[in-house]
Amino acid sequence: MNDDVPVVSAGKRTGRRSGPTVSHRLILDIARGQFAEHGYEGTTMRTIAQEAGVDSALIHHFFLTKEGLFEAAVRGALNPPDLVSRVMAGPRGRAGERTVEFFFTYWDEPEARERLTAVLRSATENDEAAEALRGFLGDVVILPLAEALGRPEPRLRAALVGSHLIGLATSRYVYRVPELAALTPAALAAGTGKAIQTYLAGLL
Amino acid sequence: MNDDVPVVSAGKRTGRRSGPTVSHRLILDIARGQFAEHGYEGTTMRTIAQEAGVDSALIHHFFLTKEGLFEAAVRGALNPPDLVSRVMAGPRGRAGERTVEFFFTYWDEPEARERLTAVLRSATENDEAAEALRGFLGDVVILPLAEALGRPEPRLRAALVGSHLIGLATSRYVYRVPELAALTPAALAAGTGKAIQTYLAGLL
Repeated sequence: MNDDVPVVSAGKRTGRRSGPTVSHRLILDIARGQFAEHGYEGTTMRTIAQEAGVDSALIHHFFLTKEGLFEAAVRGALNPPDLVSRVMAGPRGRAGERTVEFFFTYWDEPEARERLTAVLRSATENDEAAEALRGFLGDVVILPLAEALGRPEPRLRAALVGSHLIGLATSRYVYRVPELAALTPAALAAGTGKAIQTYLAGLL
Repeated sequence: MNDDVPVVSAGKRTGRRSGPTVSHRLILDIARGQFAEHGYEGTTMRTIAQEAGVDSALIHHFFLTKEGLFEAAVRGALNPPDLVSRVMAGPRGRAGERTVEFFFTYWDEPEARERLTAVLRSATENDEAAEALRGFLGDVVILPLAEALGRPEPRLRAALVGSHLIGLATSRYVYRVPELAALTPAALAAGTGKAIQTYLAGLL
């Protein structure tokens, strides 16, 4: 992903302009913040350009459309890296607890949290964001884990796990329910791991 | 609630104008639909007045502000009537299953569903709707049930039950995840009742 390249070359001037790379990264950071704060409909190319101090035409040049910008800004919002292999590396009977702990440890990081909040805020009003969440709840993130555990009805299991995690995440990060916002990922995993374990691998 | 009074007097003309009562009810119905479809920010007194075919001034006259109209339109969105006494009337060991079945039987009714969808769509962008959901997740609806069951940490229990129910409801009614939208309330209760039971009354 080219928003991960270094944005400044420290120490010496190379003669190359760093402007476009700086702007690309800056625009993504600002877009992520505005999508998280105002949702999809409340964010425009114009308000992002204003905050970034660049011309709207530059944003169109980089990302073509608001949809493209949204996609680039929130990519990776939902899935902790290597989830399946990390969950499967430990005892099967505690897969649910590890799943919860890996998700919330990842989502608690400021940038992942902002991406996730942007998706949660946007998904009730915009089809692309809703599709990202349907994918999360259905196929993309949780289904491979349910399939790896080899129990019947993996699609229903993935939907139950996904909807529980989304409910917890919305309560923790968007509604900021004090009892849930205060827990560490490990404490959240201890409290909800058994339910997630049943959905992943128990008798439904 | 005065939106429950009959809106037409059938059979004979009484000489009283039924206009204001009809309009009051009609405005609430239309507001509910627009809040559910477009969320709080995407709905205005003007768009409601247009769809209702009335002057905006009449809406202001009835409800003063958009906040007041929202409150009136979605009142009763979250809580099934007599939840606590109905859950407590059956065996304690299956309180979780009854809770899920009562909620989704109530929410599946078209008007309750529309009110709930309006709250879910609005809660990520508007403080009043978010406050309604925080109340649901915390104090108002689930806490009395957790307290009736008499186990320690009722506030944490209420937050866990509420966030799971909200996650399921959002997945079923807003994202329309096929695996969850297809289940009857009884099937949903069978699948998730054990988790809710643990949160309400089990070892956390």
